Formats: sequence, structure tokens, C-alpha cells
Amino acid sequence: MVTEDDPVEELSTEECWALLARGELGRIAYLLVDEVHLVPVNYVVDDGCLLVRTSPGNRLLAAALEAGVAFEIDGRDGGIAWSVVARGRLRRLEEDEQHRMDDHPEQPWVAVSRPEVVELRPAVLTGRRFLLREGV
Amino acid sequence: MVTEDDPVEELSTEECWALLARGELGRIAYLLVDEVHLVPVNYVVDDGCLLVRTSPGNRLLAAALEAGVAFEIDGRDGGIAWSVVARGRLRRLEEDEQHRMDDHPEQPWVAVSRPEVVELRPAVLTGRRFLLREGV
Repeated sequence: MVTEDDPVEELSTEECWALLARGELGRIAYLLVDEVHLVPVNYVVDDGCLLVRTSPGNRLLAAALEAGVAFEIDGRDGGIAWSVVARGRLRRLEEDEQHRMDDHPEQPWVAVSRPEVVELRPAVLTGRRFLLREGV
Repeated sequence: MVTEDDPVEELSTEECWALLARGELGRIAYLLVDEVHLVPVNYVVDDGCLLVRTSPGNRLLAAALEAGVAFEIDGRDGGIAWSVVARGRLRRLEEDEQHRMDDHPEQPWVAVSRPEVVELRPAVLTGRRFLLREGV
């Protein structure tokens, strides 16, 4: 439990997945030609993975070949804030796997065509809970 | 203006700074030993820079020596979402510059001691506005 003396606490893996399942918007950080980039994405949780729609030729995929990526969500419930970070490599779903995304009812927030789907299977999943200062 | 036919729009630099000035929570992505990391941070805008409190020996600083970082905020106002990304290098403020942070009334969200301050002066600042689908 977070307290004034100890305002930061690690989340369990189960808590991380529960928060991921509740969310729709995260951010992916990736390396491309020695530069770190950061982009907001809609995602869904599917079978222990995060699925993200993307476009053919998207830079995310090129980046994934170069190095792993980091994915983050955060939020706030009253006086408690939290964040979850997943790290791992992206993989482009093959044509016969694309239905995995179609099985989810969630629609992307923006009506831009992104026919491909990438999967992030977290190699490392960590989360933290933070007690906020009074008045914040 | 974003429309159904053209739901994504680039923001001007002035719009990016206005959104940065309104925010308090962002995320920094950095590279450390060939791995991409991503961490939520409180920040303030000061004189064309973003200032972030950190601890001595924090990994962010080590990372900044290795490569640039990317900083992101995002948000939603009704049917419009937006994001702003700043990229550049971090610099640790010298002792005689630390007052720059003290001049800001904003308190960090979490009561953890972070006596040092790093500055990100954006080399690249970009933002986007997104028209959200109906019902999102």
C-alpha cells in the first residue's frame, strides 16, 4: 500500500494486465536510425499481447527490426496515479492472424486506414502506483 | 481544421507550446545500453525548455549522454485528441541554475526527493490534432 512515507509501490504482473485491459491509448517509444521516437497509439490486449494497428511501411516496423520498443500507459484514480511499461519486440501479424484484431470490438480513435497489425509480446512488464501529494 | 475526410492535422509550434504549458505530466523515452525505456514525468515549461526533476545518478541523465530523448504529452478535448512530441538532448542544470525550477509554483505529483533538474531544449517539436470517430 502506498503511504506518505512510502509513496511509490511496484504493481504485480496481474495488476499491470488489468490496467492494460482497461486502457485504449498508450505510447510506443522506438529507436530509428539512432534516434528515439515516441508516438501515441490505440491498442487492444489479446492473449498476453498488445495489438496495434499500423500502415504498410510504417516506421514502427522498421524500428522494431533495429531494437526493442517500450510501451507505456498511465492514469489517475483520485489521489493515486499509476503507470505500466511493457518492453519487448514488435512482430507484424501475418495475414492469417489479422483476425485477432478483428475479434475486438474497440475501434481506433481516428478514422485513418491502418490495415496492418503489429504485436508486442512483453518481455518485461512493470508498473507502479504513486500516492499523489495533497492538492495535486 | 480536422474533418472527416482529413482527420489528422499538424499543429503549429505555437500550438505545441500552448499545450505544453497547460500540461504537468509527460513521458520521456530514452535509450540506455541499446534498450528503449519510457517513463512518466512531471515537467514545467521554462524559457523555451522543459524542466524535469530527477535524482542524482538517475538513469535519464546517463541516457542523455548516449543519445537524444523524446518527450510526449497527449490529451483530449471532446471530439478532438492531440499529441505533442519534443525531441532533443537533456542537460543537467548547474547549481546556479536550479532556481529556474524553484520559480515555478507547480509541485511534483509524488513526494519523492528529486533534487536535481534536467532541461530538455527541443531540437524538434511536432504536434498533431486528431478528429475522433463518433462514439469514441
